[in-house]
Amino acid sequence: MVDRHELIKKLAVKNESKVLLLVLDGIGDLPVDGKTPLMAAHTPNLDALAKKADLGQTVPVLQGITPGSGPGHLGLFGYDPLKYQIGRGILEALGGDVEVGKDDLVARANFATLEGNVIVDRRAGRPVTEVSSKAVEKLGEKIKEIDGVKISVYPGKEHRFVVKFTAPWLDERISDADPQKEGKEIAWSEALAPEAERTAEVVNKFLREVKEVLKGEPRMNFALLRGFSKHPVLPTFDEVYKMRAAAIATYPMYRGLAKLVGMNVVKTGTTISDEVETLKSIWSDYDFFFFHVKKTDSYGEDGNFEKKVHVIEEFDGLLPEILSLNPDVVAVTGDHSTPAKMKSHSWHPVPFMIKSDFSRFGLSDQFNEYECARGTLGNIMALDIIPLMMAHAMRLEKYGA
Amino acid sequence: MVDRHELIKKLAVKNESKVLLLVLDGIGDLPVDGKTPLMAAHTPNLDALAKKADLGQTVPVLQGITPGSGPGHLGLFGYDPLKYQIGRGILEALGGDVEVGKDDLVARANFATLEGNVIVDRRAGRPVTEVSSKAVEKLGEKIKEIDGVKISVYPGKEHRFVVKFTAPWLDERISDADPQKEGKEIAWSEALAPEAERTAEVVNKFLREVKEVLKGEPRMNFALLRGFSKHPVLPTFDEVYKMRAAAIATYPMYRGLAKLVGMNVVKTGTTISDEVETLKSIWSDYDFFFFHVKKTDSYGEDGNFEKKVHVIEEFDGLLPEILSLNPDVVAVTGDHSTPAKMKSHSWHPVPFMIKSDFSRFGLSDQFNEYECARGTLGNIMALDIIPLMMAHAMRLEKYGA
Repeated sequence: MVDRHELIKKLAVKNESKVLLLVLDGIGDLPVDGKTPLMAAHTPNLDALAKKADLGQTVPVLQGITPGSGPGHLGLFGYDPLKYQIGRGILEALGGDVEVGKDDLVARANFATLEGNVIVDRRAGRPVTEVSSKAVEKLGEKIKEIDGVKISVYPGKEHRFVVKFTAPWLDERISDADPQKEGKEIAWSEALAPEAERTAEVVNKFLREVKEVLKGEPRMNFALLRGFSKHPVLPTFDEVYKMRAAAIATYPMYRGLAKLVGMNVVKTGTTISDEVETLKSIWSDYDFFFFHVKKTDSYGEDGNFEKKVHVIEEFDGLLPEILSLNPDVVAVTGDHSTPAKMKSHSWHPVPFMIKSDFSRFGLSDQFNEYECARGTLGNIMALDIIPLMMAHAMRLEKYGA
Repeated sequence: MVDRHELIKKLAVKNESKVLLLVLDGIGDLPVDGKTPLMAAHTPNLDALAKKADLGQTVPVLQGITPGSGPGHLGLFGYDPLKYQIGRGILEALGGDVEVGKDDLVARANFATLEGNVIVDRRAGRPVTEVSSKAVEKLGEKIKEIDGVKISVYPGKEHRFVVKFTAPWLDERISDADPQKEGKEIAWSEALAPEAERTAEVVNKFLREVKEVLKGEPRMNFALLRGFSKHPVLPTFDEVYKMRAAAIATYPMYRGLAKLVGMNVVKTGTTISDEVETLKSIWSDYDFFFFHVKKTDSYGEDGNFEKKVHVIEEFDGLLPEILSLNPDVVAVTGDHSTPAKMKSHSWHPVPFMIKSDFSRFGLSDQFNEYECARGTLGNIMALDIIPLMMAHAMRLEKYGA
């Protein structure tokens, strides 16, 4: 079995084409009173694009599998989410805009409440972020280095924060320092491979220092660490696809995921309109553009059907400005479905369309779940998206003679 | 590449949901005068379910591959039929309701006619079952043990029967004791691995005894043995999916296949109505229910379009009673197509629908081959069915963060 990336790498050629991937996070949905948000929204521009595009629906990982944002985006970027797995610590760090380099080992941390040697509250009573940030700051001031390993701490939401250990010899094969259940004793980290023993030792020394620094605190007097992970080794986007890629995203998690595959993350603002301005300003500098809209997913997670509709309409209103850049290939899709009625990510296939001068089109004049289910492309895997976009951009040579 | 079962095992969680898989064996068909049996049948209840369900069509193994009942059902149960192969001997034994344990080695046997040392008729003139059963009985009385190996024989249809050898050291790596063609000499079984030499020896001693016992018979005076197989080692349904599974089937082959994957086979009667009663009686005891209707396939094999239509209507009439149990997830499909005009299993995709509170539905109001081809799900693999059902039952956690 040929590795997909090896195949693409062999066939990829450079040219002047502009390739644009528009991701509406969590766009797929379920009908409420017969309409999904994409159907309820007034979307003349998406629909006009659909008229000229090939429609299909993508399966993010496998049928029935609900992806997190990590696997969802890896799939969109053409990296098999079952082959490349991103550790929890890394995702938490990316979400917190924490830079992770090759010498770094990161972990998700919780403040917890300790009584004697027993964890009585794994979330330390869910402190508000302003309060927990102070405690993180205190840890940062008091604990800077252990056995030659640089220690950095970063605040997160409520009881959560990120710990970064920096030294070239750190090894991620250590167990979580988290008993998982309340009423249990401290779980010290253990090496899962002989090479990781020094790392586990440093982590445990860190935990003892945390305990010492926070001993006056009534509730946030200890920490739990899990998901230890180093920066994963992924072939870069440019190396595999021969496209200089830029990422535009308002949320750190998605900037981080783009950076993981070697995209250039461009500074942008907080609105879709800001993102469009950014896209315009860098249009001449790159070949491939990953443009991420977060709020479709956020409102899906909130169960807010109406606001999801509004974000879709807001995006639709900006689409002509985006398309006026004249991309050679443009695709619109999501990383997964986030049905408002489920208030969570789901496994349902995701609407997808791709438009170029070489689209077959002709079956649909609307962009929604049902038209995509019956589109010219049928079911495809998320992994197929980048090869399809490259093909439409004439960036893939013929395979074999 | 992650193994599917390993992935599902990691993501599977238990809950109180009831998951029901209704299998109409060989349901897929081809049109005669523009209608398939599913279209010709009056099916108000299947159609009402289709209105609320996601439709698609399943590919049993690979496009173009016609599955036997073994691979067909392994696929339905989520076991890759290209990875897990069930020996012929085992299938024959299961079809004959023969219990197969871990110390058993089973083989399909034919009565044959021997002249001197030459096989002149591989089916001994196709004796009627009543006659061949007598000969099996005689063998059972005369041959009970060889070199410490227990011998059991079981009657089958016409010239066929099953031989079971029982000893802990038996090895299935032996060649068929069957020359395959008439006019050839006896083919003695040969060891295909050094560890299997004793086994081949026992098989050949058995054949000599058969020849001795049957020497007075005019036609059924010898036996051919093939498809030697032991009980395959499969991960159990419960272990992989964390669902307690019950199987309801009127035919031994399907009970046997369900037992192979560790389902609990429940005693039932001979009609679909009996099966519904059984389902009702065990509804509170299990999480997952495999409900098998055989006759759709039987009439397909007979080329009897009309009777296939009637079985579909009979099932449709009982569907409300089944659905009154309120399954959280219900799927209707087949293990393969058995087009009446082909009188055999075929490779054609199989109609499939799945209904839960999380169905996208909305495209179809009938359950048949054409609506399924244009359904919300598109083409899926039979292997996708169980993960999809688990997803709809909220029994799979999110993959990655």
